Amino acid sequence: MKLWQKESINKSGKEAALRIEKFTVGQDREMDLYLAEFDILGSMAHAIMLESIGLLKNNELERILKECRKIYNDILEGKFLIEDGIEDVHSQVEWLLTQTLGDAGKKIHSGRSRNDQVLVDLKLFMRHQVRVVVEKINTLFTKLVELSNKHKHDLLPGYTHLQIAMPSSFGLWFGAYAESLIDDTIVMQSAYKVVNKNPLGSGAGYGSSFPLNRTLTTKLLGFDELNYNVVYAQMTRGKSEYVVLSALTSLANTLSRMAMDVCLYNSQNFNFLTLPDELTTGSSIMPHKKNPDVAELLRAKTNRLKGLPTELAFVTSNLPSGYHRDMQILKEILMPAFDQVFECLDIAHFMVSNIQVKPNLLADEKYDPIFSVERVNELVMQGLPFRDAYLQVKDEVFGGTYVASRDLNHTLEGSIGNLCNDEISRLMKETLSGFGFEKVDEALDKLVNWK
Amino acid sequence: MKLWQKESINKSGKEAALRIEKFTVGQDREMDLYLAEFDILGSMAHAIMLESIGLLKNNELERILKECRKIYNDILEGKFLIEDGIEDVHSQVEWLLTQTLGDAGKKIHSGRSRNDQVLVDLKLFMRHQVRVVVEKINTLFTKLVELSNKHKHDLLPGYTHLQIAMPSSFGLWFGAYAESLIDDTIVMQSAYKVVNKNPLGSGAGYGSSFPLNRTLTTKLLGFDELNYNVVYAQMTRGKSEYVVLSALTSLANTLSRMAMDVCLYNSQNFNFLTLPDELTTGSSIMPHKKNPDVAELLRAKTNRLKGLPTELAFVTSNLPSGYHRDMQILKEILMPAFDQVFECLDIAHFMVSNIQVKPNLLADEKYDPIFSVERVNELVMQGLPFRDAYLQVKDEVFGGTYVASRDLNHTLEGSIGNLCNDEISRLMKETLSGFGFEKVDEALDKLVNWK
Amino acid sequence: MKLWQKESINKSGKEAALRIEKFTVGQDREMDLYLAEFDILGSMAHAIMLESIGLLKNNELERILKECRKIYNDILEGKFLIEDGIEDVHSQVEWLLTQTLGDAGKKIHSGRSRNDQVLVDLKLFMRHQVRVVVEKINTLFTKLVELSNKHKHDLLPGYTHLQIAMPSSFGLWFGAYAESLIDDTIVMQSAYKVVNKNPLGSGAGYGSSFPLNRTLTTKLLGFDELNYNVVYAQMTRGKSEYVVLSALTSLANTLSRMAMDVCLYNSQNFNFLTLPDELTTGSSIMPHKKNPDVAELLRAKTNRLKGLPTELAFVTSNLPSGYHRDMQILKEILMPAFDQVFECLDIAHFMVSNIQVKPNLLADEKYDPIFSVERVNELVMQGLPFRDAYLQVKDEVFGGTYVASRDLNHTLEGSIGNLCNDEISRLMKETLSGFGFEKVDEALDKLVNWK
Amino acid sequence: MKLWQKESINKSGKEAALRIEKFTVGQDREMDLYLAEFDILGSMAHAIMLESIGLLKNNELERILKECRKIYNDILEGKFLIEDGIEDVHSQVEWLLTQTLGDAGKKIHSGRSRNDQVLVDLKLFMRHQVRVVVEKINTLFTKLVELSNKHKHDLLPGYTHLQIAMPSSFGLWFGAYAESLIDDTIVMQSAYKVVNKNPLGSGAGYGSSFPLNRTLTTKLLGFDELNYNVVYAQMTRGKSEYVVLSALTSLANTLSRMAMDVCLYNSQNFNFLTLPDELTTGSSIMPHKKNPDVAELLRAKTNRLKGLPTELAFVTSNLPSGYHRDMQILKEILMPAFDQVFECLDIAHFMVSNIQVKPNLLADEKYDPIFSVERVNELVMQGLPFRDAYLQVKDEVFGGTYVASRDLNHTLEGSIGNLCNDEISRLMKETLSGFGFEKVDEALDKLVNWK
Repeated sequence: MKLWQKESINKSGKEAALRIEKFTVGQDREMDLYLAEFDILGSMAHAIMLESIGLLKNNELERILKECRKIYNDILEGKFLIEDGIEDVHSQVEWLLTQTLGDAGKKIHSGRSRNDQVLVDLKLFMRHQVRVVVEKINTLFTKLVELSNKHKHDLLPGYTHLQIAMPSSFGLWFGAYAESLIDDTIVMQSAYKVVNKNPLGSGAGYGSSFPLNRTLTTKLLGFDELNYNVVYAQMTRGKSEYVVLSALTSLANTLSRMAMDVCLYNSQNFNFLTLPDELTTGSSIMPHKKNPDVAELLRAKTNRLKGLPTELAFVTSNLPSGYHRDMQILKEILMPAFDQVFECLDIAHFMVSNIQVKPNLLADEKYDPIFSVERVNELVMQGLPFRDAYLQVKDEVFGGTYVASRDLNHTLEGSIGNLCNDEISRLMKETLSGFGFEKVDEALDKLVNWK
Repeated sequence: MKLWQKESINKSGKEAALRIEKFTVGQDREMDLYLAEFDILGSMAHAIMLESIGLLKNNELERILKECRKIYNDILEGKFLIEDGIEDVHSQVEWLLTQTLGDAGKKIHSGRSRNDQVLVDLKLFMRHQVRVVVEKINTLFTKLVELSNKHKHDLLPGYTHLQIAMPSSFGLWFGAYAESLIDDTIVMQSAYKVVNKNPLGSGAGYGSSFPLNRTLTTKLLGFDELNYNVVYAQMTRGKSEYVVLSALTSLANTLSRMAMDVCLYNSQNFNFLTLPDELTTGSSIMPHKKNPDVAELLRAKTNRLKGLPTELAFVTSNLPSGYHRDMQILKEILMPAFDQVFECLDIAHFMVSNIQVKPNLLADEKYDPIFSVERVNELVMQGLPFRDAYLQVKDEVFGGTYVASRDLNHTLEGSIGNLCNDEISRLMKETLSGFGFEKVDEALDKLVNWK
Repeated sequence: MKLWQKESINKSGKEAALRIEKFTVGQDREMDLYLAEFDILGSMAHAIMLESIGLLKNNELERILKECRKIYNDILEGKFLIEDGIEDVHSQVEWLLTQTLGDAGKKIHSGRSRNDQVLVDLKLFMRHQVRVVVEKINTLFTKLVELSNKHKHDLLPGYTHLQIAMPSSFGLWFGAYAESLIDDTIVMQSAYKVVNKNPLGSGAGYGSSFPLNRTLTTKLLGFDELNYNVVYAQMTRGKSEYVVLSALTSLANTLSRMAMDVCLYNSQNFNFLTLPDELTTGSSIMPHKKNPDVAELLRAKTNRLKGLPTELAFVTSNLPSGYHRDMQILKEILMPAFDQVFECLDIAHFMVSNIQVKPNLLADEKYDPIFSVERVNELVMQGLPFRDAYLQVKDEVFGGTYVASRDLNHTLEGSIGNLCNDEISRLMKETLSGFGFEKVDEALDKLVNWK
Repeated sequence: MKLWQKESINKSGKEAALRIEKFTVGQDREMDLYLAEFDILGSMAHAIMLESIGLLKNNELERILKECRKIYNDILEGKFLIEDGIEDVHSQVEWLLTQTLGDAGKKIHSGRSRNDQVLVDLKLFMRHQVRVVVEKINTLFTKLVELSNKHKHDLLPGYTHLQIAMPSSFGLWFGAYAESLIDDTIVMQSAYKVVNKNPLGSGAGYGSSFPLNRTLTTKLLGFDELNYNVVYAQMTRGKSEYVVLSALTSLANTLSRMAMDVCLYNSQNFNFLTLPDELTTGSSIMPHKKNPDVAELLRAKTNRLKGLPTELAFVTSNLPSGYHRDMQILKEILMPAFDQVFECLDIAHFMVSNIQVKPNLLADEKYDPIFSVERVNELVMQGLPFRDAYLQVKDEVFGGTYVASRDLNHTLEGSIGNLCNDEISRLMKETLSGFGFEKVDEALDKLVNWK
């Protein structure tokens, strides 16, 4: 059912019509379920605003809000669905309202286009999903800091060029990925700020002659700011999704690298850690195998995410300004990506929590050369210029007279002996405080219970 | 049910186990349904070969083939499914065979690993899907040539830099996209050749001590050649998918550009063609609109495909040689892509078949300058050097004395007056003959009815 | 000259050695010139810190700083070069210092690795370049706002689906791109924050046994924070470049879309604007042409930038933690990108400043339907439900009784009649204040003139 | 000097003009040097054809060909350059011809546009470069087959999931990469076929009213076929480059994976091979290091190539049909890519030739489990169903009763004991014969010496 449908196609074209319908609707009905909750919020804010400028009567508003709250609760309880023959979430909601409210249900579309309706739904959706990502990042971060502290004395060979290089530790290794998540959160924050702006009222991208009050809906929906210029508001379709997906790739880089390390360290040739049975599987032909499938799939799924901004940008590139139907496809790229990210963050948390670290790794004499820089520095502290100390130790190493001393006394900020995890935790806390999640909570709470 | 499952995880870990199961299985069961048909073909060939080297008795083979044929027919009739608790298509088939055949069902796994089993399934699948793509390309090609011939006298302004340039025609325009499909088919052919090689017998990537006869299975399955080196055979996982997806992007470029032209030519500012109601939709707020949504979605869906090789390559990049579980994720990128391509080719065919071309477009005086090159060439044919003729006509154009002559007499190969569609059709025919589809048909026909 | 070079390769291997040298050095010497200025700053901060912990004597520090200042001025005056046979900027600087200062010159390498040296150079470089980008964005922004105000009464057809839709204006169009630059600046800011952290002291990624004071160098170089964890500090190589390039693609999207609009609007079929001769070129065979080459190249160059994060991420994907030489190649992707962005921002500014807008575009009766929504809204304001008004006007339009009224009275925030450019300028100002450029200026000023 | 330059820009605009000039010319003059040789070939073919249809007199042709041969030889001897103030290679050649030949020099532009001139240059260039790539691939292939044969008895642990799995060998490892190059060559061949078609005569994309003989120039230039449809001929700009770059990424995947293996196998934790000093470098702070920098840079440079099709496709996506100046930028992506590929193939050849393989790797008891499948198969050959044998050996392995037997007797095609390198060499030979390089040699030889 399209509410503005043209005259019915004659019978001979029916099959073609069905094929076209399938092509144009695509996965849109599944995707739109993600938006239902936010569509109601947008509609409530719009209705309140319409009443404030005299386009709805007060009693119409009350009935609309009551009905909206009912649908909202259905959605939260998983009882909402898009009925057969209804093409999208907006039509479903409008149809429900019209069924119950008659003309008042129709009036809610005044001063609003599908374009700004879906835009505001998407911004509310992305704002919410980015927040969930950030909260899951923080959970993983906290676990990694905990593990870093726990394993600060478990030494590990440090590599450069995949060659053994200098002493490292599991304290450093867990802590490194924790700190990486801070920068990922900074990147997520810019995406959050870009989507936390109100496009409602921009209509089809050229505004409206209705005297809408966009400042009011901005406040009601807890947005930081308006997307002022209505042409720009429309341009944020595609742009917002791109910024959000790009931000997710930064996180994906962190998780895929961590998974790569786990796969490598779990190889018999490294043998730095073991994984519990839940995180490994066997082989159909090799009876001795315990493969790190979970780490591999974590690596694969996060690597795959890196391609999404490109996929999305191919759809939007070189389109002139103004809405195009092409935008619909972006939902299919954006929405499943969040589910993937949520799952990957949960699994990463489960994985790191269950890693069993091998003790005393550096006792193996294979790792003797790892201590050569310590020897150089010792000589430097005794007064030799660095380059001369370096050449002397090099002669010792290649001449076979080098003896590894395993005494380590690293004190500099962020090193084996001084992990600075408190400072790192402080940085994360400061970053998180920059989002302003409470402000949104307050606004939405007020909106849902509007009186 | 995993056939090589380790000891059961204790109860406290059950929830974690379920979460891990969901994560590792992912969309694999849906994806594997694409492979069912090909898994049976591979199993039949493997069984025949095992019998030939004495690892199956003749009567065991007969029972296996009979059962396989039954499952094969179930698949073709849509009656096959992967039961709850069974993790993939290979396990389902093995389970069905073992249920009925007991030990003989188990024996079919001799000399075969999951790795080469899925590899051969994927190659048979890709070979089949590439062929369907090529057949649909040819259907679209034939329609475009037909339309090119039909509209050879319908002139159209030709543009360079989006500026009106020289006379073109719908004959040229339809024909151009037809010819583009030939080069896309050439690219598809290399992908076809890469996947039309037999990896069966490569085991987990290191062969087997069984005296398997890989030449026999190659012949039975209609492959052109073996992937000889077993380490390389395993490396084709990921590589084949990449080559196939890359080939599809060439086709995607053709279709997305055609869709862009249609959207532009359908704009009131160009007004070169109209689309029937089935191919347009209205606006929720603008009562006068007839939007080319189908062309826009065709453009979007084909553009999106261009990102897939990147998405896939991120998963496989920098993985050392040898199988990794990461490969599983590639199925989720590869398989839906074919469905998209099939649908896009069908819709493109429907769209071009229903385009209504506007007549007499060049009669509009706005297009006068388009004939200025004709005037230059006229002067050149009269003996003036090109550069001098060019400058004279330029003076006429900017001095206001230029008069457009609409007489056109283009005879060179491929031009308005000489479209060369017969030659173009010949090129397509020659390209198609290079695939050798009949050889595959013969082999598979023989295999399915093996006696 | 490599300072840690191994024993010379014998003569027969000389040619191979040269080929290898060419392969490994690549474009590194050109790229390193971008870093020279920042290498000196990093060295000065490192030296001051070394003196503070007793690894340099006070008079050694004075001599080093004096020499550094000399080189720094040479660089600013364009007199610095990397001499033949010297492989990179760090070696060149070290060689200059050692020539003049002897042992003191050597000592500056204490507690420092090439890895953290190039890391700090790159962060200082990126911090600086991001700032230049932001300043150029602001210049373009200011011009666009000015043009938006100037052309607020110059109406323009607004399009959706490339179909004429509703009234727009050049005021809206220029203003939209201005506001787009604000979100691009927000994205740039997160990149700025990610790079504005100090990796110095992380050595080769595993710290050092020297008691370095990383907090001091952080302050001296004007960084916001440390990259605390030394393993993470090393991980920021590749990650920082990726975040910065990703941020640039957001800006690239804005510029390429604007260029696309210009090319389209300049087409005779739209004819909304003209470009001066400096921004167009002729054709070698068509004497009537004035092609918008500059806008096309702006579109191409900015579109190309969108591929760079992918290019970079392919290099770094699936590399285990720890430095790899692969990182060197990232400089060739990163550094020229900034030059491209600078040039594109300058040209975009020049282009928009010289666009000649056509007046009275909507007077053309072709654009009558554009006013149909106004008619719908008029009926709604008179009390009709929206859907009913919509259907009535649709009947008028398709029944031929519709008469376009060109009276426009848009008052909502961000619409034709209320551009909100003051609010948009406020948003930009607030965004810019978040960078904290002054803090960096103060620190570097103090550092360069250290006493 | 632009040959069709508009009236000179007044003085006040001079600086702007210079800036615009720099922006529009970009790297075009450097890029065009790659085309010089091919521009002459195209011009000679065009001139011969013009004479054949009466647009050049016989003596004019003779003078033109003589002059072209002179320039051609200058180019081959490295004496050709694009003079200051001349914007591209086509103008330089035209200017040289006009200087010497006067009017006859001008006449060569008859029936030709810059667009089809650069198109034919690019196709000849790409055809040539693809051939060089293929020849270098073959050189590397031959070396890898040689090394495979040489090292067929040097066993190596085979990995799946980075876990030790089954016995492999350096014979298999070298041979795998050899066979991979065959599929890469198949992909290159489709690119070769796509570019080996003649666009000359398509003018600016809409043909010409001159009675040009395109079949003749096709033959003269050794092309397989015409790009018939002139609109399509123009569309091949961008499309051809994309197909070629996509083909190169397949090769890049092979080389980058091989380099990854080398880096990993060279790690002390694997220790499967060593690299000579020429292929390694030391560390500035760690005296014991021998880093595989050359392999790392080979990995990085080939990985980077994978991003190029995306970079290129962003420039061309969603451009309507017809030439756009955006195409110029593609040269900067395409041309340096070939140089990179050539260098990487040379270095890969040098690297594999100098790898020192470690003997007796599997003697280490760490690799005992690798032989467990052999034990399973032994039991199967004795009559046990595979699944039962598998479970028995699994019990042995985890119960500690398993004893590894190191007797290997693999006979299946492509396995350790039967590398099938002769078959693999045959496949490569057959693939190479499909290019038809001789036909091109003959044609060009005849053209250059035309009488």
